[in-house]
Formats: sequence, C-alpha cells, structure tokens
Amino acid sequence: MIIVFKPNASNEQMKHVSDYLVEHGFKIHPIQGEEHTVYGIIGNTKNLTPEFFESFKGVSTAFRVLESYKMCSRAFHPRNSKVKIGNITIGGNELAVMAGPCSIENKKMMDNISKKITQHGANFIRGGAFKPRSSPYAFQGLGEEGLIYLREAGDKYGTPVVSEIMAISDIPLFEKYVDVIQIGARNMQNFALLKELARLDKPILLKRGISATVEEWLNSAEYLASKGNQKIILCERGIRTFEKSTRFTLDLSSVPVIKKKSHLPIIVDPSHPMGQRDLVIPMARAAIAAGADGIMVEVHDNPDEALSDGAQSLYPKQFSELMKEIKIIAGALGKTIAKN
Amino acid sequence: MIIVFKPNASNEQMKHVSDYLVEHGFKIHPIQGEEHTVYGIIGNTKNLTPEFFESFKGVSTAFRVLESYKMCSRAFHPRNSKVKIGNITIGGNELAVMAGPCSIENKKMMDNISKKITQHGANFIRGGAFKPRSSPYAFQGLGEEGLIYLREAGDKYGTPVVSEIMAISDIPLFEKYVDVIQIGARNMQNFALLKELARLDKPILLKRGISATVEEWLNSAEYLASKGNQKIILCERGIRTFEKSTRFTLDLSSVPVIKKKSHLPIIVDPSHPMGQRDLVIPMARAAIAAGADGIMVEVHDNPDEALSDGAQSLYPKQFSELMKEIKIIAGALGKTIAKN
Amino acid sequence: MIIVFKPNASNEQMKHVSDYLVEHGFKIHPIQGEEHTVYGIIGNTKNLTPEFFESFKGVSTAFRVLESYKMCSRAFHPRNSKVKIGNITIGGNELAVMAGPCSIENKKMMDNISKKITQHGANFIRGGAFKPRSSPYAFQGLGEEGLIYLREAGDKYGTPVVSEIMAISDIPLFEKYVDVIQIGARNMQNFALLKELARLDKPILLKRGISATVEEWLNSAEYLASKGNQKIILCERGIRTFEKSTRFTLDLSSVPVIKKKSHLPIIVDPSHPMGQRDLVIPMARAAIAAGADGIMVEVHDNPDEALSDGAQSLYPKQFSELMKEIKIIAGALGKTIAKN
Amino acid sequence: MIIVFKPNASNEQMKHVSDYLVEHGFKIHPIQGEEHTVYGIIGNTKNLTPEFFESFKGVSTAFRVLESYKMCSRAFHPRNSKVKIGNITIGGNELAVMAGPCSIENKKMMDNISKKITQHGANFIRGGAFKPRSSPYAFQGLGEEGLIYLREAGDKYGTPVVSEIMAISDIPLFEKYVDVIQIGARNMQNFALLKELARLDKPILLKRGISATVEEWLNSAEYLASKGNQKIILCERGIRTFEKSTRFTLDLSSVPVIKKKSHLPIIVDPSHPMGQRDLVIPMARAAIAAGADGIMVEVHDNPDEALSDGAQSLYPKQFSELMKEIKIIAGALGKTIAKN
Repeated sequence: MIIVFKPNASNEQMKHVSDYLVEHGFKIHPIQGEEHTVYGIIGNTKNLTPEFFESFKGVSTAFRVLESYKMCSRAFHPRNSKVKIGNITIGGNELAVMAGPCSIENKKMMDNISKKITQHGANFIRGGAFKPRSSPYAFQGLGEEGLIYLREAGDKYGTPVVSEIMAISDIPLFEKYVDVIQIGARNMQNFALLKELARLDKPILLKRGISATVEEWLNSAEYLASKGNQKIILCERGIRTFEKSTRFTLDLSSVPVIKKKSHLPIIVDPSHPMGQRDLVIPMARAAIAAGADGIMVEVHDNPDEALSDGAQSLYPKQFSELMKEIKIIAGALGKTIAKN
Repeated sequence: MIIVFKPNASNEQMKHVSDYLVEHGFKIHPIQGEEHTVYGIIGNTKNLTPEFFESFKGVSTAFRVLESYKMCSRAFHPRNSKVKIGNITIGGNELAVMAGPCSIENKKMMDNISKKITQHGANFIRGGAFKPRSSPYAFQGLGEEGLIYLREAGDKYGTPVVSEIMAISDIPLFEKYVDVIQIGARNMQNFALLKELARLDKPILLKRGISATVEEWLNSAEYLASKGNQKIILCERGIRTFEKSTRFTLDLSSVPVIKKKSHLPIIVDPSHPMGQRDLVIPMARAAIAAGADGIMVEVHDNPDEALSDGAQSLYPKQFSELMKEIKIIAGALGKTIAKN
Repeated sequence: MIIVFKPNASNEQMKHVSDYLVEHGFKIHPIQGEEHTVYGIIGNTKNLTPEFFESFKGVSTAFRVLESYKMCSRAFHPRNSKVKIGNITIGGNELAVMAGPCSIENKKMMDNISKKITQHGANFIRGGAFKPRSSPYAFQGLGEEGLIYLREAGDKYGTPVVSEIMAISDIPLFEKYVDVIQIGARNMQNFALLKELARLDKPILLKRGISATVEEWLNSAEYLASKGNQKIILCERGIRTFEKSTRFTLDLSSVPVIKKKSHLPIIVDPSHPMGQRDLVIPMARAAIAAGADGIMVEVHDNPDEALSDGAQSLYPKQFSELMKEIKIIAGALGKTIAKN
Repeated sequence: MIIVFKPNASNEQMKHVSDYLVEHGFKIHPIQGEEHTVYGIIGNTKNLTPEFFESFKGVSTAFRVLESYKMCSRAFHPRNSKVKIGNITIGGNELAVMAGPCSIENKKMMDNISKKITQHGANFIRGGAFKPRSSPYAFQGLGEEGLIYLREAGDKYGTPVVSEIMAISDIPLFEKYVDVIQIGARNMQNFALLKELARLDKPILLKRGISATVEEWLNSAEYLASKGNQKIILCERGIRTFEKSTRFTLDLSSVPVIKKKSHLPIIVDPSHPMGQRDLVIPMARAAIAAGADGIMVEVHDNPDEALSDGAQSLYPKQFSELMKEIKIIAGALGKTIAKN
C-alpha cells in the first residue's frame, strides 16, 4: 500500500497515520517528494482498502501495490495453466469450440443440432437446462430432463458437455450429467455458489459478470482456486456500456489482458453480447485472432422457433463456414482446432 | 411490439414476418410510412424479444411497447404502495432512516452504536452478518452470532432490524432474527434466491445491481411480487460507470424515475457508492431532496478499527448533524422522520 | 510516480528502469516489500505516464502521485474561489439560479420568459443562440440575433446573461453581448477554443463532458486558469452510462468531490440529463442539497412549441414552486438565493 | 415516430396529442392494443424527439422509427462506398495499414520510422503535429514544422500521409501538406470544425468519440456528407467504460455494426485504447478478423524516448511480425494488403 499525503498535511496528521500503522504491525517507508510526503507500507495489507487510508485527515490518496488475487495471477504461476477434459486440453495450442442451442428444448432438437455441429468440428456440446431469465414470465428451462438430453448427445457424438448451474441445490445433478459446469455472468459474484463449486473435482467455466472488472473476475476465480478447485476456464461474454447497437459490448481486450495478468485459459462467447447472428460471426473470428483459447457459440437448426435467443443462433451452415475461417486464423497463430 | 422494415424490404420479406406472426396467433396492424412500413403487433408479446424480429431479413428494428414487468408498474397500481414494519410505514410521508455498522463485529460494538443512532433518530438498525466480499481473503462476517447481536439491539432500542442474506440455506436464520431481509446488489439477479424469498411473509429490501437498469431492477422485484411477496422496498446504491473518484456513481435520478414507473417505495444507500464519509453526508441530504422514502447509512463509533468499510462510516456526531439537516429538507417536501 | 516491479523482476530489468530515470534527472527511492520492489520517483514526472513505465520489462504497474492539474486544485488554493458577476458572487453562501429557454426563438418569447423567471427569483438569464445539435438537420439557433434578444432581456430585467459558444470566430460576439460564456459538454476538450477563451476577462461556465472524469474536467479548467483566465464556474450536466431511463446520468456526487479536490465553484444543470420536466424538479432540489453553488434550469412559457428540448423545460409555475422548495433546502445549509 | 399511451390514458389526453400532431401537419395511424393505444405518426418527424412526446400527459413512451442520418445509411446507398487516395482504395478488398509515430518529433525520426514501416508494408504514414493533450502542461506538437516532415516522408517513400487537425484556422496547412485529414475523438462533435471540413475535397478520417454511440458517430459523418464531403473513412478507437485495465475499451463490435448500418469504410486504431504495445498486436489482428478495412498503429524506433505515448508504440520488428500475421488473416476473408 502506498499512502500519499496532501502537500499541506501537518506533522500531527502524518503521525496519526503512522501510529495506526505501527500499532497494527506494519513497517513504514517514508519518501519525501518535492510536494508530497509518501508512505510505502510493508506488511500484509490485503485486508486494508485504499479508501480506509483516504479517510484519514491529511491523506490525499492511497494505492494498492499487490494484486488482490494470488493463485490466479501470472506472477504466482508463470506458465499457462491447462485444463484437460476428456481428450481435449484447453489452454495450449488446441482450440475449444463449444456449440449448441441456447436452451435445450427437447430430445430431438438436441440430437439434431449435436449431430450437425460435431460434423462441422465442434468439440464440446453446450445447452441450457436452467435459464437465468430477467423476467419471471420467460421460459425457465427443462431442468433435469434437459441435462439428460445433453448427456445423451455428448455420449452419442463423443464430446464433453457444458451447462449452466444456478442453484447450490442442483449441484448433484450437474455432477451426474455434465463435464464442465458453467457459472453465468449473473452469478459471478454469488459467493455462496462459488464456495460450493470449489469443493468439486469438475472443471468450471466462469463467465465474466456484465459489470465485472478483470480484477473482480480474477478474484471470483480465486474463490474457486483458493478453496480447492483450480480447473478454471474463464469466458468473456461482454460488458455493459452506453452503446446499445449491440446487447453488450464484447470486450475482446480482456483476452490479452487476462493472458498478461493470469495463467488461466480464456474463451469467448460472442453470441450473447452481439444478439444477432450476422454480427456473431465476425466477432467469433476476432476472438480467435485476439488469442482466445476457444469460443462458445449458439447454433440452432430452426432458430425462428427457438424458445430463447433464436436471433443470435447461427444456422448450422453458417457454423460450418465459420469453422473454415477460424481454422485459417488459428493457423496464423500456430494453433489448431482440437479433436475429440 | 412494433416492427420497422427497411425502406427497401421486399414484399416476400414482409410476408415471411407476417406469416410467422399469424401462425403464432398475433394480429398485425400495418402502417405505411413515407419511407418505411411498420407493423404494430397485437397480442401477448412478452416472450418475444426485439432482437428476434431484427434477425428476419428486411427488418430494420423492433421495439417493445409493453413494459416487461406488470405487478410492480405504476400503471397496474396507480397509488403508492406502503410497507408496514413494526410501527413504521415506508412509502408515505414518513421517512425511514436505517443506520448501523457495515459488519457486526461483536456484541458490545453493536450495542454501543445502536444506542447512539437511535438516540439521534434512526428508526431501523442495520448490520451485516454475512458479507459478500469480492476477495476470498477478506472478513466474511460473524454469521448467526451476528444476527443474534443485531436482534438483541433491535429489541433493546425498540426498532426493526435489517440484514443481508446471501444463501438460500440461511433463510431460516433470517426468518428467526430479522425484520427486513436485504438482497444485496450482487444477488439482484440471483433468481434462485429471489424465488425462495418470494415465499416468505417478510419485507424485502431489494438493492439495485451495480449494472442493473431500472427495468431489470423492477423485473427482479417482479420475481418477488409475482410469486407471492409484495412487501418490497427498493434501494438505490450506485451503479458502475467510468468515473472513479467515487466507488460507484450514485444514480439519484432513479428515485424520481422509479416513482414514475412504479408504485414501490425506494430508499437510498449513499455509504457504499461514496466510499468516504465526508462525501456520504451531502448525498444523504440529496437523496431526501430527490424524494426518496428514506436512507440507509453506515455509522461506526470507532471506524478506524472497523473490520470492513470503515472509511465510509459516519461518526455518531456526524450522523446527528445529518439528521438535523434532513429534518429540514424533509419539511420542504411535507415529510417527517418516522418514529418508532 | 510510483513504480511497482513484478515479484520475479530481474536485477537487470530493474537496472534498465533506474538507468532511464537517472539519465533523465530523476531521483529514485527504492522500497523492498515482502513480494515486490517499489520505486518512488522524485522529480517533475508530469509529462511521464504510468503506461510508459508499465511498458518496461519487469514492471507490474505504475501510479501517478501528483494530480495532473495544479492551479485548480484545493491543495494549491485551500479557500473557495469566488466569481463575481454584476452584483452576484458565485462560490459563497449565495446561490446562483440561471434560468431561461433552451434556444432563443424570437424577441417576444425571450422577453416573456425572462419577465416571469426573474419575478420568481432567477438571478441569471440563460438562452442558446448557437446550438450544438448532433444531427445536421436540427434547428441550429438564431446566431447573433439571439444574443441581441438575450442581452436586451438581461438589461431590461437587471440580470447577467449566459450563453454557449461553439466557435473561436464567434468570440467577438460573445464579448459584446454576454456576461458569462458557456463551454458546452461537447467542447470541454476543444483545446483550441479553451486556449482562446483563456485570454478573455469574462467568466467561463465550463460544462463537464459527457464522458469526462472529474480529473479531465479539472484539467480543462486548468487550460483556462494556467493561460490567464481564473474566473471559472464548473457545471455538472450528467454523464453517459448504461442507464437509459434518463438521457444522461446526473452525477451529483461530483459536487462534493469537486468541493474536495478543487476550490472552484460548481453549479448543476438537471434539465439536459433528465430530459423530462417532472424529473428535473427533484434533481434540482437534490443539487442544492448536495452543496452546489447554484443550478441552471430550462424554463419555457409554451414548451409544446419550443424549437428544442421542450420536454425538459419547466412551466413558469413549476419554476416558481421549485424556487420555494430550494429556498428551504438552502436554508438547511446556511445559504440563500442571491439577489441582483 | 411511434407514441405509446399509458393503459389508463384518458380520451382527453390522447386528443391533446392528436390535436398537436394534426395542427403540425402529421397524419396519425392509431392502433388499439390489448392494454395500450399506440399512435403511428406519418410525416417528417426528424426534428421531433421521443422525449417531447413523453412529456405529454398520458403518454408512456415514444420511439423514433427513422434513423436520424440518411446519406450515410446503408439503406440510402446499399453498396460499400470506396474512398480512393493515391493508388489505394479503402472500402474494398484491399486493406489500409496506416503506421507511424504518435507525435512527429523531428525530421530524422520521421524519416527513419517511415523508411522501416514502408519496407514492412505500411501503405499510409501517420504522424501528429497538433496534439490534443488533456493536460495543458504536456507536449503540444511541432505544428507546421511537423506537417512538413510528414509530407517529405510521404513523398520520399511514396505513400499518402494522415494527420489530425484541431482548429479551423489550421485548415490551409492541412490542405497544403496532408492527404487525409483526421478528426480526433475529442472533436467528433465539434460541429463548427465539421462544417468547415465538409467544404474541402480531401478525404476525412473521422474517429469515434470516446462516448459516442454508433448513431451519433454516423450523425457526425452526416454533417460532412450532407454539406458536401462524402470521402469519409470511419475509425474505431475505443470507448470509455468502467474497465480500467486498458485505457479505453476497443469496441470491435462497431465494425460489423457499421457495416450493417452504413456503407462507409471503417478502420481500427488499437494503439490508443490498449495503451501498451504487447496488447496492441492481438487487437490489431482481431480488427482485421472482424472485417475492418484497415488499421492505424503507432510505430516508433525508440519508444523509450518518445515525446508522447511511447508505451503503446510498436517496435519496427513487432510491426513486421504483425504484418505477416495480418496477411494470413486477411486471406481467410479474401482480402489483401493494398500496395502503393
């Protein structure tokens, strides 16, 4: 922690701060600048906030020097983490392509879509069985029935499956049916849920909250890692900004930023932020070009009749085109699409 | 729902949309403008999104006409809702003043602070026992022990008590000890939690999520109302913006906006967004001037040693000064501070 | 400037930074923390950015210690600045109330509105003659003719007048007709314009840019002050956020923040951000309660026929009610409405 | 314009609106929905705002149907516009690569850098001579001297040159020395400047304002187009959001959005938003993958000594690597890098 005093701070005011620090076991390293006095604080300041010191009289500002997360930081673990799921390893030179419908609607559609996407090279099947809907009047998902159809599709087409969890009480279902448990954007800071999922031996796909900073996102990952589960895959899915021509603003910058600050793998979901299928395709390509470890895209064989988010679902044919483009872009970076 | 076609949309493209609508039981009211054709759609379009229609070829944009919430809208219930808790009624001409420490630290501090704030006119006692902390390494609260101290303080000083819940499994504790259950900003869209709290006969204080629009906030209230619990008090607590000189940007505009769109009472928490006590006081006054039904402020008798958020806690003496100013401002609007 | 090295930074990497600093005349004050080495840099670092040091290998982050503005900072000038215009002094215990139409439409309307607002206690008349319109097809203002009507109204009703400038070439007109020159939000960082206005001996009303941080706003004020014009009044008018139920989000927190960081007076314009007159009134009251030195509100005697922004203009009767409420709120803070 | 009435709107309230509309020459097309009455308004409503109608009693909301820009919309001009500069055509299948230093510092550096970047395939040279600096104490550029060095480099290495204008009074200099005139983010809504530049026969590179919506950006382009200059190239350069791990949030989504709404070419500047060179490279690649018509990147042969923004400038060797990757990605989309 660095504490900067105002130019006119009195000795008494500075003494008040230093007394507090000494009393609480910290060492102070004072620096006399041209206008300001600055204190460098040595010791474990993780539980102290800059605002706390800014509330002392005579203090101008305070800055945190240490990152608030540790196990998820690149400094702690300089090499890329890799998460192995079935035959696929996420975080290396092979890209994950997770595809499927927004909501699982029935057994037949799940099978149809799974067949097509795996033919075109998807290496994970995704589908929602418990849907976080902002309106209580919207379709809320098939529940366990949906997870069963998803599992069956994964087994039939030989890929791992991913689905989103919303409640602690559903953990046994997800342990039974699902290979990767997704934490949605709205639950990124549902700490009660994070603590429970930290106890499992299942990979977690942790989506970024719509207003979460990169630092908060890594802190949520730290909840998982510090309490026992280090099989974490991050997923960028757009942040909330003033711009309304897309549903959210896909922050692709977070890909290289995460790669710099953390060792965790990161994939990108362009479907939810873009909201319309013709906008999804360019951003899926851009995600790979930015260095993501994979993408998650929605595909539906009859999107006009989809029970949720049909407008953003690719037609299977579009998905096939996208896969071809992505392969070339991946090649420019020395990567390939993983195969099951 | 209003659907606007592109100037150059073909008849075939428009027919594709109208076929879909007719097939799904909607009536169409076409308008031929100077450049665009517009369809007004009649029927229950709550489950259809504008993006869905924007994905049809030839469509330029689509707009929702109906609000997505109903029971919480002013149109549904034109007069102000009032929520009665003990001797206090929130939503009329009497203002709620909820005060207390951020975290409940021990029995003695809870008693000390409660004594002082109730002397100065607080009519609710607040205190956190389960703390949502972005870092897993920060103080997480006393749990049930904290709720007991809070209950004892409420009983001793004759006020209702408020505390934040984080997990469904803690509901029995909150039913036992607490008069108003607070849903924090991070859980505003924890729909699993909302559904469970909707079954209780306890008032709910629903904080706005840090990136929630007013519409999403009212939709979360709708989860409570539509599933059985209409004792809802909204609480504005700041949104996330680019400005970093305060922790969050307190959106006081939401007070008159909510009063216009909804019949629910709304209070304001200036402590969390402002982050520093000297900034809290002006914004508490402003909240009352903007027409809020009350405020929630943090007060601590020894904020330098607080286990969380000390910097934003008022000294009891500051709280006393604030109460005097607020009384005058309330008077300008024909209101008074409620008394237990 | 504070430079924080990564835990695993090599001696060579740190030497590269220290060589650079020594070569450029800075002194280094190293601090050896538990995990990180930190350099405190002594000397004039105003032209160095944190990003610059963050681009050196081995550096984790860098922070600026000094504020980037000087003459406008509270540290430089601890007491409130006061700006005297006619008989009114802004920045003390007397509040400015600037009222009038958005656009000056003709001589008669300017006279009518001015008569009514000054009767009800407005102490400045405002009106736009050059309008910054985002669409090239919208009404662009009467130009010089408008300034003449404004000047006539000011002279007749005995108040100073305020209007917005858009181009350097119009400065002679503003010098001739106007008492306070307003720089609109879109021009807050039009540095060419700021430099020219800095040469005048006229008070400047500097509106905050819609995406300007408080620090950038004060830096724009610094352009004026450092180049010769210290008669600056700041005006908060809302920032751009994700929330769309109001046109902009009025950031009233900036009032106490500016009071803390700067000695300049600050007023608030609630009309533009709120966009609808029934929302303007509560926020005008809140601005005074938050400690602003005045307000600027739009009033129109026939808003349905206004050529711009009619929806947000108060009726004269509403303005009269607002003045009564504001007087009481000002009284709670020991202030009064200034009289010409 | 669509006007939606409240469910409980009275006949008198609706008549007030319809009287206003009829009196002003509009036709009304009423729709009776299940809960709401809706008016479709036919006629030229460009100068009416939704807020205007929302201020009438009984009105719930109003929506604009027509886009506020016309000449820049895809509907007006369905095929891509192409802007020809020297031998290069922007907007087709050949990509523009504009490179060079942030500020022109002296003749020698301008020559050195220009030599290297053109060797590696840059087809435009960029360099700043008039710098928009938020602080009045920062380096403000060499002025005309800088433009001369830029022109000389362009002539020597056979490429067109680009530089940013800040003041109307500098137009003659830019006409003399520069091939493409850049309007910076801070001046995107400097309407006085836009109107003057609209009179020239020079291509304009119009950067997006840091808080400009896509619609506002296209409206600023409309100022140019409607007043005579249709040689417009848009440039995405990041928007302001809550995320602070990058300087701005590069909104690459705007590339496909602009391609959908407008016929104008669009390039991307990843240097300014990312702020650090190792983050610039992935985002430059992503821009091409998202479908941009080119990029603008800063390159410096000695960035540690750069007078501005050294941290974000690529080393010539990095630029060379980037060009190789971009060529492959362009190929995946059927494009090539343009050659002079």
